[in-house]
Amino acid sequence: MEIQRFGTTGRFSDAVAWNGLLHLVEVPAQDTGDIEDQTRSLLASLAAQLESAGSGKDRLLMVTVYLVNMADYAGMNAVWESWLPPGAAPSRACVQVARLARSGWRVEMAVVAAGRVA
Amino acid sequence: MEIQRFGTTGRFSDAVAWNGLLHLVEVPAQDTGDIEDQTRSLLASLAAQLESAGSGKDRLLMVTVYLVNMADYAGMNAVWESWLPPGAAPSRACVQVARLARSGWRVEMAVVAAGRVA
Amino acid sequence: MEIQRFGTTGRFSDAVAWNGLLHLVEVPAQDTGDIEDQTRSLLASLAAQLESAGSGKDRLLMVTVYLVNMADYAGMNAVWESWLPPGAAPSRACVQVARLARSGWRVEMAVVAAGRVA
Repeated sequence: MEIQRFGTTGRFSDAVAWNGLLHLVEVPAQDTGDIEDQTRSLLASLAAQLESAGSGKDRLLMVTVYLVNMADYAGMNAVWESWLPPGAAPSRACVQVARLARSGWRVEMAVVAAGRVA
Repeated sequence: MEIQRFGTTGRFSDAVAWNGLLHLVEVPAQDTGDIEDQTRSLLASLAAQLESAGSGKDRLLMVTVYLVNMADYAGMNAVWESWLPPGAAPSRACVQVARLARSGWRVEMAVVAAGRVA
Repeated sequence: MEIQRFGTTGRFSDAVAWNGLLHLVEVPAQDTGDIEDQTRSLLASLAAQLESAGSGKDRLLMVTVYLVNMADYAGMNAVWESWLPPGAAPSRACVQVARLARSGWRVEMAVVAAGRVA
């Protein structure tokens, strides 16, 4: 079975699909701004990536949320909950790590989703 | 293919099944107690969730263990190893994070499992 | 559908395959050495594990890289990028955690890969 990759560089792909299963990782477009700004930026990119890879925000299976400060938990959740379609919440882990690859990033999400047809 | 969700709120689902693949995340029922108490509580909930979603503790594929103090490693492992059926250990990562969503939680596990029929 | 486990102990399996999907976790063979040494060691083991489980480094879907110091990011990436076959980069998350199970480990990777036939 073929592996389909999107936005592939020498280091990572933006998204990888195989057997109807989609893996993708999202960070904010900017490394400034508060948690609400960064979460909105990240989720806008996630929605677009999901659509272009044949999935959607109603097809999430599992999301791992990495924060650098658990004080951002409520702000991230507010944006997350308003973005998510009703009844479509995935399994979700949320942990505070020491830092992310860019020091200004406050949030990163690793996502597993299902394609629309598989 | 349908996505089946269990215990869905506006923020997360307790478990999500798709194509025979199950994702779930478990935390302790209480945010007090030592690592043995919390791990027992978490694994009792995991066993129940797995069963009600058509899987079981002999069907684990991958577990990510988040601890907030690596000094809890031996205590977590003792409970984990006595809970796990012989010969059924999954792939497992274990990392110490800065903290979990509730400050009293000492352990969180993100789990991938296989359904009994797929 | 059968679950196939490799290198199973009472605590974890080196790799677990089910329905063409492979989960494995790799750490360096040694807990000394710099990030380049440890990443090379880890990736050599990963390549061998992938091959023996019927996959390969051109079949990676998702990799989570845990570092204990983001100052190791460039060194890890240099080894990673020279190890990876052209055009085969997976989805990848990279976070700095507080520590790994052995205090000398600088890197751990959790990997999802696809089998060659599924």
